[in-house]
Amino acid sequence: VDWLECVPNVSEGRRLDAVARLVAAAVSAPGVRLLDVSSDPDHNRSVLTLAGDAEALHRSLLALYGAALAEIDLTRHQGVHPRVGAVDVVPFVPLGDTPMAAAVAAAERLAREVAERFALPVYLYEQAARRPERRLLADIRRGGFEGLAARIAEPAWSPDFGPARVHPGAGATVIGARFFLIAFNAVLDTPDVAVARAVARRVRESGGGLPAVRALGVYLASRDRAQVSMNLVDFRRTPLLAALDRVRSEAEALGARVVETEVIGLVPEEAAFGVVRDALQLPGFGAGRVLEGALLR
Amino acid sequence: VDWLECVPNVSEGRRLDAVARLVAAAVSAPGVRLLDVSSDPDHNRSVLTLAGDAEALHRSLLALYGAALAEIDLTRHQGVHPRVGAVDVVPFVPLGDTPMAAAVAAAERLAREVAERFALPVYLYEQAARRPERRLLADIRRGGFEGLAARIAEPAWSPDFGPARVHPGAGATVIGARFFLIAFNAVLDTPDVAVARAVARRVRESGGGLPAVRALGVYLASRDRAQVSMNLVDFRRTPLLAALDRVRSEAEALGARVVETEVIGLVPEEAAFGVVRDALQLPGFGAGRVLEGALLR
Repeated sequence: VDWLECVPNVSEGRRLDAVARLVAAAVSAPGVRLLDVSSDPDHNRSVLTLAGDAEALHRSLLALYGAALAEIDLTRHQGVHPRVGAVDVVPFVPLGDTPMAAAVAAAERLAREVAERFALPVYLYEQAARRPERRLLADIRRGGFEGLAARIAEPAWSPDFGPARVHPGAGATVIGARFFLIAFNAVLDTPDVAVARAVARRVRESGGGLPAVRALGVYLASRDRAQVSMNLVDFRRTPLLAALDRVRSEAEALGARVVETEVIGLVPEEAAFGVVRDALQLPGFGAGRVLEGALLR
Repeated sequence: VDWLECVPNVSEGRRLDAVARLVAAAVSAPGVRLLDVSSDPDHNRSVLTLAGDAEALHRSLLALYGAALAEIDLTRHQGVHPRVGAVDVVPFVPLGDTPMAAAVAAAERLAREVAERFALPVYLYEQAARRPERRLLADIRRGGFEGLAARIAEPAWSPDFGPARVHPGAGATVIGARFFLIAFNAVLDTPDVAVARAVARRVRESGGGLPAVRALGVYLASRDRAQVSMNLVDFRRTPLLAALDRVRSEAEALGARVVETEVIGLVPEEAAFGVVRDALQLPGFGAGRVLEGALLR
């Protein structure tokens, strides 16, 4: 059996009762395992981490879409994170020896069925993208729900599945397959979102910063702090500590400091042990040097 | 069944064929698991990490003592690490929910039998110590083999088991029970052992430095570097990164830098995740945020 991870991002992070119903729907499918739920009130977004075989995840996601369409009205949704849908983005990630092709197949199957069953426009992204300009999530999501609604009728932005108009309450949805990604946010000691945006521009790959890093600056009203919100799309190329060190130095150049960081969802063990190697100048540290790991082998 | 870890330190780290025979003897006991072997040529010392129940470890250690007496002649042993025996020190450590009393009982049983079978003087230390002045390993080991040989006939230093004279080729041995300890060494960019000694004096608890840290400075001829060799006896009181940061700043004050670190034996997962928390300013990071850990739960 090919094991996959699936990390649906839904546009609700404030009404925790609604989040609970979404999670309950996702775990109603037999064989699916819930590894994590991270909700953020400022992003107004929740990230579920699920694992299972393709069939279990397919059923889980269909139930989640059904619940999200009932719970979320995107026209009333406010949050600092860009989004185009009630179920905004659904990446499938191969676990262990599972080939990427299995994740792509799971994405395509879900895309087809979601479009049909819920009359939702669906875009395929990353490894599942059918057009090169849809590979990057940021390009599909440019301008958010409102931006996509304005251009969806253009032939260039015709969805891969489903109608060429946004769903009135649920918008659109982006489904795909990708390698493991770490969602890593650094909270600054300033409320000035312009500082976070400037730091993000200098840190991210598209601005000539660090490889395999995506970043944006947002304001967290609940904490009155600015935040640099990052995706590390290949933690072997830019590890966690290297990304943070760059954020620290760019922030310092603008008179700000990092007060704490957060990880949304889960981190592969290897990325965590990489932090130990880098922070302690301890070459070769890994699972084999950890007592619990050695006991399990 | 009470699971224990046992971490015998033997006075051979250069002749790797001899080390292999010692390890083979240790793993000849049914039910014992070998988790790690770390050998260092400058310390001329090897550290085995074994796990099992008390009976398996008892048989394993008796076999190891037998092999060490055949392989090691302490009168010809040279190394920068203090030692009093061919099998220098044998701590038992409770794993999981095992009570410390089980580790103490294992130490006492082994001490009695080793003394009888091999005519070795045995000292009990740490949680198994019978006299307060024998609690600290450093006090028993003061002056090394030669120092102990000179005072073993004094009533105050009469061994807990065995004859009041050192064994001609194997010296004495120190057996005990303790909590988990991290052996953590920082290599400096200088060959000047005086710098490493000065740093060690300022870092260790007995010099007014960090709590639960023991440290000494040694010279590594094989690398022409000085090293601060530390034992962190309670990584919750002084975590790995805090110890290293102190070594870094004390070394810098003397014009030296840390070029790399090493861990001898294994590190509890919680100590590794603590480095991630500290280095990334990431509160709450732990096994629950790690993909592999979440999959295993």
